[in-house]
Amino acid sequence: MTRTAGGEHETEDADTLAVVGEVAALRRIFPRLPNASAALVGPGDDAAVVAAPDGRYVVTTDMMIEGPDFRWAWSSPEDVGWKAAATNLADVAAMGARPTALVVAIAAPAATPVAVLEQIADGLRIACAALAPGCGVVGGDLSVSRAFTLAVTAFGDLEGRHPVLRSGARAGDVVAIAGTMGLAAQGLNALFSDAVDDDGRPDAVRAAEVVARVPEVAVQRRPMPPIAAGPVAAVAGATAMLDVSDGLALDAARIAEASGVRIEFDSSALGPDAAFALAGGEDHALLACFPRRRRCRRRSGRSAECSPRGWGRSTPRDLAHVESTSGRVSVDGRPYAGAAGWDPYSAG
Amino acid sequence: MTRTAGGEHETEDADTLAVVGEVAALRRIFPRLPNASAALVGPGDDAAVVAAPDGRYVVTTDMMIEGPDFRWAWSSPEDVGWKAAATNLADVAAMGARPTALVVAIAAPAATPVAVLEQIADGLRIACAALAPGCGVVGGDLSVSRAFTLAVTAFGDLEGRHPVLRSGARAGDVVAIAGTMGLAAQGLNALFSDAVDDDGRPDAVRAAEVVARVPEVAVQRRPMPPIAAGPVAAVAGATAMLDVSDGLALDAARIAEASGVRIEFDSSALGPDAAFALAGGEDHALLACFPRRRRCRRRSGRSAECSPRGWGRSTPRDLAHVESTSGRVSVDGRPYAGAAGWDPYSAG
Repeated sequence: MTRTAGGEHETEDADTLAVVGEVAALRRIFPRLPNASAALVGPGDDAAVVAAPDGRYVVTTDMMIEGPDFRWAWSSPEDVGWKAAATNLADVAAMGARPTALVVAIAAPAATPVAVLEQIADGLRIACAALAPGCGVVGGDLSVSRAFTLAVTAFGDLEGRHPVLRSGARAGDVVAIAGTMGLAAQGLNALFSDAVDDDGRPDAVRAAEVVARVPEVAVQRRPMPPIAAGPVAAVAGATAMLDVSDGLALDAARIAEASGVRIEFDSSALGPDAAFALAGGEDHALLACFPRRRRCRRRSGRSAECSPRGWGRSTPRDLAHVESTSGRVSVDGRPYAGAAGWDPYSAG
Repeated sequence: MTRTAGGEHETEDADTLAVVGEVAALRRIFPRLPNASAALVGPGDDAAVVAAPDGRYVVTTDMMIEGPDFRWAWSSPEDVGWKAAATNLADVAAMGARPTALVVAIAAPAATPVAVLEQIADGLRIACAALAPGCGVVGGDLSVSRAFTLAVTAFGDLEGRHPVLRSGARAGDVVAIAGTMGLAAQGLNALFSDAVDDDGRPDAVRAAEVVARVPEVAVQRRPMPPIAAGPVAAVAGATAMLDVSDGLALDAARIAEASGVRIEFDSSALGPDAAFALAGGEDHALLACFPRRRRCRRRSGRSAECSPRGWGRSTPRDLAHVESTSGRVSVDGRPYAGAAGWDPYSAG
């Protein structure tokens, strides 16, 4: 399967969904999907049955649509499968849970080559293997639509822990991040400025050139949320946590609002591209608040604050801290007034 | 909110998604959604947490897309919400489980009035109340798309029972149905023949006239799957069960294939419209196989075969029976050769 500069799948491949039909297409896709070790009954019946050892399960859902959410000129089907898994796995991890299973509904134009769906399955499989081993696909649905759409629902196991909500941050907490900040937005920026044709439309040939030059594009196409850091934070006593999908400022404001606190960022801890970190989403880092009382032993024998595994360096400089004044987010003591986060209905 | 004859939502309503934005739209939709009694953490965080008292949960997903799956000229937003819930609830019930929760992802054009989403929420709520009391929405996602899309994932509780799969039918079993057969297809037929304009396009004004004249249209728009009959069948020892979404013949063939048996229909038990019953889907009846050994007491004191509650009349005439010859489906002893079931990619 090749892609044209215009971003459409070439239909020289005679094996389109219209030609092959649903049953034969599913027969080709199924073997490529990752197995879930929690599946008691897997795909193929009216519903799946999944184990929930502690008597609860975590569930989240997220849709990706060709056009607003991804473009075939900029992302391969494998990238799209990866990203659909990764974004949902990050939401599960942000509750402090271990991802166990996915269900995947895909709606595709009838002219879509079956190979596109096979490669999406490959992307789902390698993302699960890389980010959440043991997690797999337990069911799905295949439909027809003029807009290529993936709807993934992901499940997780809290393993006896309390879920970490957005509402538990307390004054005095320190704020830490696991994962990268602002890289995906930098990658998207590079695609929008340099991977378009002369009329401003996404262009696969120019995208290949941008990919080779701008490493951040890889983060945009295949985000690497630090899934294991979610359960680690829960064990370490995180008071609040979420997945950074809409930029640090907007997502921190969600914790601030839910918890009735103010989150005060120190811009010097945000790296050289603080504006991208604050306004740019899609890295799918985890942002969490921890009580300051956590201490650990240094080799010197002196007690010092330290971070749970995967949650950045120890103090002196935290990413941010929580203040009791009810409000939103501030940076270096001033209310944040930078670019707002993503709203699907106000974009282009 | 009114609809034009052409089936598009009028945009005189200034409160479109583009105008109102995601956050305000969600604030209007949330209060209309049904609550789930199994929700430990409901909508609003990165993920929901749902109770799974017996350490397992049932999960299924199904998408509905404007165009191939429904048309605004023929279905109100409330109808669409109802049907999206009902089809998924039926899949849960077909495992022998009690539906507990839904997550609902919706992708809508930015010009969609928020009132459309409110009415979809109303449809989800009244369907849960009517079909599966206690079941509710625990999470969701709102996205933008040129094709109006609902992706519902539904969950259920097996309450300690074994799931009823498609693969357990055995020679000698009797086949029974709970729910209606072929009515939804008759309704759809009436819409396609009489609820179109002179160019063959779906027409809301003519649809209203058809609705008043043809009661089967109501079944097409708001199917009434007999959800409680699913757990009843499981308790009664059903060996195989599924949700009839693609017509009795195709769905019975799925049991036949999975179980390695032949299912032999008696056309005289299929009612006056046997062809519609065999080929027409979307009533979302439940089809199940039961061991013939089930007996119950009549008032006369004589033992007689009888059906579990909701599973039709007692013998002498069963809907069908299971034979050991491996094959597919036959009607009155001859292999079924009627119209095939629905394939999303071969339609229109």
